[in-house]
Amino acid sequence: MLTLEKVNDAQRVLKEALYETDMKRTAGLTDRCELFVKAENLQKTGSFKIRGAYYKISQLSPEEKARGVIACSAGNHAQGVALAAQKNGIKALICLPDGAPISKVEATRGYGAEICLVHGVYDDAFQRALQLKEQYGYTFIHPFDDEDVIAGQATIGLEILSQLPDVDAIVVPIGGGGLISGVAFAVKQLAPHVKVYGVQAAGAPGMAVSLRDHKIECLPSVSTIADGIAVKQPGERTFYYCERYVDGVVTVTEDEICTAILALIEKEKLVAEGAGATPVAAVMAGKLPELEGKKVCCLVSGGNIDVTILNRVITRGLVTSGRQCTLNIELLDKPGQLVAVSEIIAKCGANVVGVHHEHADAGSEVIGCYLRIDMETRDFAQIREIRTALTQAGFKICN
Amino acid sequence: MLTLEKVNDAQRVLKEALYETDMKRTAGLTDRCELFVKAENLQKTGSFKIRGAYYKISQLSPEEKARGVIACSAGNHAQGVALAAQKNGIKALICLPDGAPISKVEATRGYGAEICLVHGVYDDAFQRALQLKEQYGYTFIHPFDDEDVIAGQATIGLEILSQLPDVDAIVVPIGGGGLISGVAFAVKQLAPHVKVYGVQAAGAPGMAVSLRDHKIECLPSVSTIADGIAVKQPGERTFYYCERYVDGVVTVTEDEICTAILALIEKEKLVAEGAGATPVAAVMAGKLPELEGKKVCCLVSGGNIDVTILNRVITRGLVTSGRQCTLNIELLDKPGQLVAVSEIIAKCGANVVGVHHEHADAGSEVIGCYLRIDMETRDFAQIREIRTALTQAGFKICN
Repeated sequence: MLTLEKVNDAQRVLKEALYETDMKRTAGLTDRCELFVKAENLQKTGSFKIRGAYYKISQLSPEEKARGVIACSAGNHAQGVALAAQKNGIKALICLPDGAPISKVEATRGYGAEICLVHGVYDDAFQRALQLKEQYGYTFIHPFDDEDVIAGQATIGLEILSQLPDVDAIVVPIGGGGLISGVAFAVKQLAPHVKVYGVQAAGAPGMAVSLRDHKIECLPSVSTIADGIAVKQPGERTFYYCERYVDGVVTVTEDEICTAILALIEKEKLVAEGAGATPVAAVMAGKLPELEGKKVCCLVSGGNIDVTILNRVITRGLVTSGRQCTLNIELLDKPGQLVAVSEIIAKCGANVVGVHHEHADAGSEVIGCYLRIDMETRDFAQIREIRTALTQAGFKICN
Repeated sequence: MLTLEKVNDAQRVLKEALYETDMKRTAGLTDRCELFVKAENLQKTGSFKIRGAYYKISQLSPEEKARGVIACSAGNHAQGVALAAQKNGIKALICLPDGAPISKVEATRGYGAEICLVHGVYDDAFQRALQLKEQYGYTFIHPFDDEDVIAGQATIGLEILSQLPDVDAIVVPIGGGGLISGVAFAVKQLAPHVKVYGVQAAGAPGMAVSLRDHKIECLPSVSTIADGIAVKQPGERTFYYCERYVDGVVTVTEDEICTAILALIEKEKLVAEGAGATPVAAVMAGKLPELEGKKVCCLVSGGNIDVTILNRVITRGLVTSGRQCTLNIELLDKPGQLVAVSEIIAKCGANVVGVHHEHADAGSEVIGCYLRIDMETRDFAQIREIRTALTQAGFKICN
């Protein structure tokens, strides 16, 4: 069982090797409450996961350490276990499905772990890891359902209370539930009046569904940009702690997550991954009305977002905030039309970044032409201005 | 004249209102040296500029404070002056050219400043600001060529020495030169053995050219993504301090700046603007070979990068690192060709994100067709694999 003594011990052990990450007051993310972020994305390996892995490994017997550890993950847990093992001078073997992003594989290898690529999906890699554990006597490091791992994550709760003693509420992402179990346990021991809320992606609400049903449920599938919390089923221990210590769980949509990632970049200069942005997403979207006017800490759990994804998130954010716009315009197939459209757009001050001009398809008038213009715009007002000017000049806008 | 007493006084004054920003040890940016970043992008307003503005304003007489301050800037200086004035309870008027990005205008207004949009370019706004200063008795807050402003920026030097006492060298962006003047002055008073290097964008090398010629030079024009340091001419005071206290100045290219911005995002989870990333760019590109194996602090001066620009920076970084790729393929105009190409790409594991298919242009074979495919790829090896597979299947790749 988790005890406060164990959490304090974990804090003592982690102090040697990891960072006490920043508690940053935010400006401009929301007017709903006084919002702080605990920037665990600035932790070593870019995520909190190394806390649990490091403490777990530190607690192994000399014999277990000599045999080494094994884990199955394509993400933050893999990197956490790899670096924690390296810092403890022991061997780590990480099983990954062979379709895992090469950047994650290389990062894990970079922290000194041995990599075992398994043909198939996560479950295949997981089975192989269990097999290897039996065969070679490795210790399996579970990503969340383990008391030592949870104790490691709980140290974040201690740090939050010391950095922000008058905090009213803490908002934490939930995947398997290891992080919130630790944080909620520690916080409720020391400051039971502080509320602890969990946030899940709407596409992966395993803990929310399980808490509602008062039993552990396994989702048939999960789908979210927040890959760090795309977990089908909560753990037994984590479900136990969440039932006892968590004050509520809400979900956020993919668009809410994207908006939060973009806001953290623009306002706070911090890169969060999808999972890490979910608490900010919940607060910004007003999913937790009970926080109105309170002093709130959002735990930004990690920042390991693939830049390809980040690019798409920014693009989506630009479109939804009126700063990028595509217009499809129907033209007559005669000279001078492109000039006329271009002039109107230039006069309105927008910046054209893409043009696609083609003859009409089979379904429309034979003399017609389509022009697709991609523009960088200032805001929705400017887009309206451009639309009006084009319409007044006789052009038909199709979207 | 600048004195250490004044810098200490500035530190005392700033303590009440601003942050002592993080000194973060980096991992994976470079093997050349032990690299730390001073994360001034996490400062209030997202840049160091508020330090100088705040100290300058704090030193005004009650009479000057009563009349208010004026500044001319579309960037970090505007936001710094605005918030500094607000915190000191005085009026600020900011002149901007009317083409300034609305996001910057709104941010400045958000800190409580009054905005004066001037028709024309920066120089027009500057002239108008001088005019208004004369007319109403406002105090003009210069962005860099002012002893109090420089003293404010110098406090970063004090923080670096206290956060990293055994630092060997500090690398600092140079625009007008206010930041490096302050940092170099403070550092050389307290730890003369610590080297201080400056970095400019190759498209705006005003200070580098002036130091080389031993007199202040005015560039005819400047062009760089690093808008925070796109300055044509160094100040008289800043030139004086740079000649005396700076150990060397190097320049970095636009691509080197983009690579550094992307690396800070991916490895450190920090958003830097172009100017802020130049020191890291210089170290990563090996522009300062004398730093080999040393303990180095790069001053990341700000993080206010427009997300539209950020998107382009990321895209460029993806292309130059083999993670995004566009192929132009010549097809025969017959059924099944698109299927065949798609299958080959899918088999190689790349992710198609855009397809553009059109008949050949006037200059090529009449039966031909062009297919442009945009893909997300893993690395250059995967791109080569796809190219080989397509070529072997008889397709002609045109790029």
